[in-house]
Amino acid sequence: MLDLLIKNCIAVTMDDEAPVISGACIGVREGKIAFVTPDPADEPAKRVIDAAGKIAMPGLINTHSHAAMALMRGYADDYVLQTWLYDYVFPVEARLTEEDIYWGMQLAMAEMLASGTVSITDMYMYLPSMARSVADAGLYGNLSNAAMCFDPAAYRYDTDKVTQQNREVLRAYHGFDGGRIRLDAAIHAEYTSFPQVWRDYAAFAAENGLNMHVHLSETKKEHGECVEKYGKTPAAVLAENGVFDVRATAAHCVWVTDGDLDILREKNVTVAHNPVSNLKLGSGIAPVGKMLEKGVRVSLGTDGVCSNNSHDLFEEIKLTALLQKGVSGDPRQIPAREALRMATRAGAYAQRREDSLGCLKAGYDASLILVDADRPGLMPVHHPESALAYSARGGDVCLTMVRGRVLYENGVFTTIDIERVRAALSAVMDRLFRS
Amino acid sequence: MLDLLIKNCIAVTMDDEAPVISGACIGVREGKIAFVTPDPADEPAKRVIDAAGKIAMPGLINTHSHAAMALMRGYADDYVLQTWLYDYVFPVEARLTEEDIYWGMQLAMAEMLASGTVSITDMYMYLPSMARSVADAGLYGNLSNAAMCFDPAAYRYDTDKVTQQNREVLRAYHGFDGGRIRLDAAIHAEYTSFPQVWRDYAAFAAENGLNMHVHLSETKKEHGECVEKYGKTPAAVLAENGVFDVRATAAHCVWVTDGDLDILREKNVTVAHNPVSNLKLGSGIAPVGKMLEKGVRVSLGTDGVCSNNSHDLFEEIKLTALLQKGVSGDPRQIPAREALRMATRAGAYAQRREDSLGCLKAGYDASLILVDADRPGLMPVHHPESALAYSARGGDVCLTMVRGRVLYENGVFTTIDIERVRAALSAVMDRLFRS
Repeated sequence: MLDLLIKNCIAVTMDDEAPVISGACIGVREGKIAFVTPDPADEPAKRVIDAAGKIAMPGLINTHSHAAMALMRGYADDYVLQTWLYDYVFPVEARLTEEDIYWGMQLAMAEMLASGTVSITDMYMYLPSMARSVADAGLYGNLSNAAMCFDPAAYRYDTDKVTQQNREVLRAYHGFDGGRIRLDAAIHAEYTSFPQVWRDYAAFAAENGLNMHVHLSETKKEHGECVEKYGKTPAAVLAENGVFDVRATAAHCVWVTDGDLDILREKNVTVAHNPVSNLKLGSGIAPVGKMLEKGVRVSLGTDGVCSNNSHDLFEEIKLTALLQKGVSGDPRQIPAREALRMATRAGAYAQRREDSLGCLKAGYDASLILVDADRPGLMPVHHPESALAYSARGGDVCLTMVRGRVLYENGVFTTIDIERVRAALSAVMDRLFRS
Repeated sequence: MLDLLIKNCIAVTMDDEAPVISGACIGVREGKIAFVTPDPADEPAKRVIDAAGKIAMPGLINTHSHAAMALMRGYADDYVLQTWLYDYVFPVEARLTEEDIYWGMQLAMAEMLASGTVSITDMYMYLPSMARSVADAGLYGNLSNAAMCFDPAAYRYDTDKVTQQNREVLRAYHGFDGGRIRLDAAIHAEYTSFPQVWRDYAAFAAENGLNMHVHLSETKKEHGECVEKYGKTPAAVLAENGVFDVRATAAHCVWVTDGDLDILREKNVTVAHNPVSNLKLGSGIAPVGKMLEKGVRVSLGTDGVCSNNSHDLFEEIKLTALLQKGVSGDPRQIPAREALRMATRAGAYAQRREDSLGCLKAGYDASLILVDADRPGLMPVHHPESALAYSARGGDVCLTMVRGRVLYENGVFTTIDIERVRAALSAVMDRLFRS
């Protein structure tokens, strides 16, 4: 007996052996995909979904977010980076509480589920609160509280707040629910700490089998200042200090050099490309075409929505393809399938979930979405992968499922109490922004 | 007695005297806005909409489309321009019938209404069929069938098919329904015709009080070849031949020079900026920041969705703001209100509808939309203009109205029979693409 049978859909599998299957049936049993087949399947199932006119694909993976910043969505647009950060973001962050983080993440995850995202690599603060929020919402999360320290004299790894929260989450949440939640080690960035910090966190990651998450060469300024200070690029100094010796995700990489790309490929680092945020903050356009040419894996992120202002990964998929075509002058750059791969398989690899996520294939987790292609904005569907990459929006997602459990369907959330989110948000708004 | 009273909304008016009104009431009488006020209004009305949690704004204006190309949505992605055009687009276009144009436009207009667009400047073929489709759907349309002729020996203005269709639509549809439909004169582009054609169509426009619609300097190649051929840029040779002596819209303008921008400003030409299409076809990024600095008016278009693949103007609004920030390195470029103005007031001016469209203000047409801001992807709303420019998607539009008549509300169309569109589409697909 299947738990679920999805019939009559178009399956965009992200499996190179059978990338697109029309009239597909997808069977789900005990949270796993039992089969994806072009043949009619009539195995008995507890629930049958007739998905005619819908496209099934693996749930999307957001490899760089600061989800709780959803509280600051649209709070400080159209400012230069320093004003944005020092006059707006930092003062609010200084007043955030554990509870704010919980509810900010609930809001973000509601948006994510409603737009097809099932898994996040999230770096922010109050790590135990982040873990509790993701545990409740039902998404996968690779979570971290990034090390950040400007003053070597004030730094003691043993008593550091980040270290303490890391240990607490390592104990209470790492591996939670069959690995649905993982702790990542994280270093905010080269320019916000120094070699001793990098070595300590690299060691912490290696000892505990954790992935590493770091911001890298986001702005021209930070990249240039590092070269001045160390005589080396951020990628080079971090690599030298062991930061990339575990499975690592480097966010942004807008200003990386050819030599940096060699390092990233050699160290098997996945780039988390955040095109909306990079444009919005005026940071630039990352050389994604060159990354792929060089064999560097590229995944996609939204960054915090205070610089986006959306968690809709379909927007990042399309924009990634558009930007590289527009900048290179070659419309063949980043074809639809390549862009979709970044938001699925490449993200799964970055999260060290490549055996369970990012592909519609027997044995993988049943963590998938259905996109309604029977709407005017998607019709007609000449090529399903094109429809997903260039026409679909997050709002066209009608069902989001993690391990066979429906978390979102046609506007309804099963794990997130959206009315409580609304109420919490209203209280937070009064306290944080109107006082 | 009002026909409609909208209560409790946030009004983003695009009127500089009162750009954002919270707790607004909007009264509608005989197709016009009777008032927009921050005070409670209890005037009796045939219908009252409680729009708490919703943002009202003027309906969007798409100043460069080829709507019927919706039939080819996603048909030929990721190819170089020549392959795209000669191997895919032209062969299909050669087989299109009048009826195909009608239904292709119905599909496009369904998508447009569902994403907040009320008015289009559309250039394609079978002009009478285009006019009939727009007349039925209820949008405003500035419609044209562009002159295109490569061989001076084969050209006779008197017997030209475009001329004949222009005259037919001039008689039957120009000024239809109180000016809802207008005929535009159009020249496809500098490189697809020659001076005699330009002079003839410029004269036709001037004689009949029509606007002019033209593609201008979309690709580096066409721009450079014109300079080689005439010793002048496309903007300069067209201006010299009278093409910009009427109210004119120039689509793309990716490769315009500083001197061209002086011409456009002097001739009062509105640029129709199509950022998605320009990126997708590898044409480049138009210098919108410089256009605005120079005092050139910029409006927004989607182009045909075969190179987009969407008619969602909210995407063009956001991308316009993002691209100029990202390319200039200055996040203050194109702030939210400026981007929204392009899709409203600037578009209205381009269409010569500036006294009736593009603004929520007493006396203007009641052609407006409601955006549902009470969804996770838009919450919280710190600044309504930011929410519209950076967080909203076409799919967040819950109501679209033209002259007080609701054409779309919560998934339901009142003028377009979406089931007939689907059936027609299915027949067209079989005949055009599978034969």
